[in-house]
Amino acid sequence: MEYKFSDRTNNLKPSAIREIFKYAADPTVVSLSAGNPSPDAFPIKELEEISARLFKENPIALLQYSVTEGYAPLRAHIKEYMKSKYDIGSDSDDILITTGAQQIMDFATKSLVNEGEVIITEAPSFIGSLNSFRAYNAKLVGVPVESDGMNTELLEKALKENPNTKFIYTIPNFQNPSGVTMSLEKRKKVYELAKKYDVLILEDNPYGDLRYSGEFLPAIKTLDTDGRVIYAGSFSKVISPGIRVAYVIAPAPIIQKMTVCKQGSDVHTNIWSQMLCYEYLTKYDFEAHLERLRTIYRKKAQFAMDLLDKYCAPEITYNKIDGGLFIWCTLPEGVDMPEFVRKAIDNKVCVVPGNAFLTDENESSDGFRINFSTPTDEQLEKGIKALGDLIKSY
Amino acid sequence: MEYKFSDRTNNLKPSAIREIFKYAADPTVVSLSAGNPSPDAFPIKELEEISARLFKENPIALLQYSVTEGYAPLRAHIKEYMKSKYDIGSDSDDILITTGAQQIMDFATKSLVNEGEVIITEAPSFIGSLNSFRAYNAKLVGVPVESDGMNTELLEKALKENPNTKFIYTIPNFQNPSGVTMSLEKRKKVYELAKKYDVLILEDNPYGDLRYSGEFLPAIKTLDTDGRVIYAGSFSKVISPGIRVAYVIAPAPIIQKMTVCKQGSDVHTNIWSQMLCYEYLTKYDFEAHLERLRTIYRKKAQFAMDLLDKYCAPEITYNKIDGGLFIWCTLPEGVDMPEFVRKAIDNKVCVVPGNAFLTDENESSDGFRINFSTPTDEQLEKGIKALGDLIKSY
Repeated sequence: MEYKFSDRTNNLKPSAIREIFKYAADPTVVSLSAGNPSPDAFPIKELEEISARLFKENPIALLQYSVTEGYAPLRAHIKEYMKSKYDIGSDSDDILITTGAQQIMDFATKSLVNEGEVIITEAPSFIGSLNSFRAYNAKLVGVPVESDGMNTELLEKALKENPNTKFIYTIPNFQNPSGVTMSLEKRKKVYELAKKYDVLILEDNPYGDLRYSGEFLPAIKTLDTDGRVIYAGSFSKVISPGIRVAYVIAPAPIIQKMTVCKQGSDVHTNIWSQMLCYEYLTKYDFEAHLERLRTIYRKKAQFAMDLLDKYCAPEITYNKIDGGLFIWCTLPEGVDMPEFVRKAIDNKVCVVPGNAFLTDENESSDGFRINFSTPTDEQLEKGIKALGDLIKSY
Repeated sequence: MEYKFSDRTNNLKPSAIREIFKYAADPTVVSLSAGNPSPDAFPIKELEEISARLFKENPIALLQYSVTEGYAPLRAHIKEYMKSKYDIGSDSDDILITTGAQQIMDFATKSLVNEGEVIITEAPSFIGSLNSFRAYNAKLVGVPVESDGMNTELLEKALKENPNTKFIYTIPNFQNPSGVTMSLEKRKKVYELAKKYDVLILEDNPYGDLRYSGEFLPAIKTLDTDGRVIYAGSFSKVISPGIRVAYVIAPAPIIQKMTVCKQGSDVHTNIWSQMLCYEYLTKYDFEAHLERLRTIYRKKAQFAMDLLDKYCAPEITYNKIDGGLFIWCTLPEGVDMPEFVRKAIDNKVCVVPGNAFLTDENESSDGFRINFSTPTDEQLEKGIKALGDLIKSY
């Protein structure tokens, strides 16, 4: 039988990162291409304790159907926590628990964007989100990222040229893949432009709690006086990604529509995971855990940057980072990036080619992304040295 | 701000069942409106043991990101199990683990159906699936269910009238909500018609293992010589719904496309749940567990039918069932069904009005659905007696 797929998914390809994972699965290849938390970042003992206790105390609740909106105590806790700690959320907002933050990208697009309508994203941007948008045949328009975030003049140009824009997608903190953090001025400017052109903002903040240096900056959502910001938070990088728990704080009518989407998709997020998060957040010292994570990753980030200085400078330059899990590296002029990445695999190190993060993967890029949270220190040194040896051979 | 939702979701409403749950939350009301497994059907002790062991033996795998296709040992086990036990699946098929079977309805529609294209469903049919289809603006065409399944003459008429049909959606075993099981002849006929009109079949089989009487019938998927059947299986009714684990066995190109959809939605299904299922299916006596479930539900189903005979006959008739969790009841001619359901709530019993299961909820229905797996025996008796008292008062 010949299969005819829907127009919206007909041109969808598996993510380029996944293709690279095939090479990364070779144990002799050092993978700097993942985005996994460090294995020593998980609060294993605590989660094990909680899980055992939940099975003792409330096994039926753990195994029975639950509600689409999410576990009520967890929703209430996050609402209160995000308001008091970050001033995020208002009385006209509501909250929905999702199966990872990727599902927020899915439901935001599904509920708001018709095929052919525009989503403006940073360029480069997180490939997973871009693919969520593409799966509804949204038109993606990329706005270049500078060292202090999106170029807001080009953002205004994009908004002017695309009156059918539904939302601006941004990762303001330690952006994936560029590592860049958006300045406060630009956060204000992006909100102002969204207001001027009457579009929504989808603010994705998976790494916000992983700041290793520099000053804390408020979320765009804190500026949201007229209900135009959809805020995506996640426990993947700060508790565990395997449990798939994230949350979206947004104007109530949008949450309502996303809830109906979730009803027709996975009905509700795994209830064990939700209860696990709730217990961990409320009965253990989550702030101390975050501090422990920052200590682990600060050290690893600095180590990776030192290795880049030692082995890859001056040919390969990179954006210094204040947080997150990724470093964006730029090749010298004249070096063919796709070829460099292929040669790197021959040299037993795997990185993600920069064009994978563009709204049009066929555009050229002179950069690539490395991750420092997943590899061990030994692997990091081996991998970055191999990149250095390779560039010196040009 | 005024929110403008996408065309595909603009008219989506929360499911009617959910609205009814609001009344059902009143502890003085007996709810016969749910579809939850009986609380004593969960293998609590075994799952508790497994979970504890997994935390001891492999905590990192339990908490780290996993692959979109699903936990490889679980996929391999289901593939082998379904082939050897039910002759389901072939070399040209593949398997994807999903976050509940509802997600299969989501991804099948997303990957195959353009807005305005047709999905033919049984009428009545499972409201959750109908809403998954509606969320992509698919056009739903209902074919009446008879005591041996879909009316295949009307199915052919529907196929003839709707050349843009993408698939036929059917629940052949103990259909939700009608309780009806499709005969072998009709299974063959449905497959033949799908072939003749070159459409796919989405075969949903959440209750297949819950047969209490009558003879086992092979799945339509077993007839699938040319790769036209998407088979949806689930552990929600036989292990636990809260863990959200289901699977789809379908031609490899369709599984590939659905996998890309899943990548852009929840990335992967909770890995703890998947490992839990794998361990339970392979290291415990799953067949004995199924037999235990059938014993529990056979008793409850018979008890509910006896109560209907005792309190509601002859005014209310019902379809005798051989399995599943639901009984479809029909009101006498001239009784206004929506009014009856409202009055039932005043009389402290909650059932689902039949029109909720129609492709057009505004069509009239003279039936309603009751569930017998969730309420206790006392609640069942109280609820069905209240329905009887009410109909006798007409």
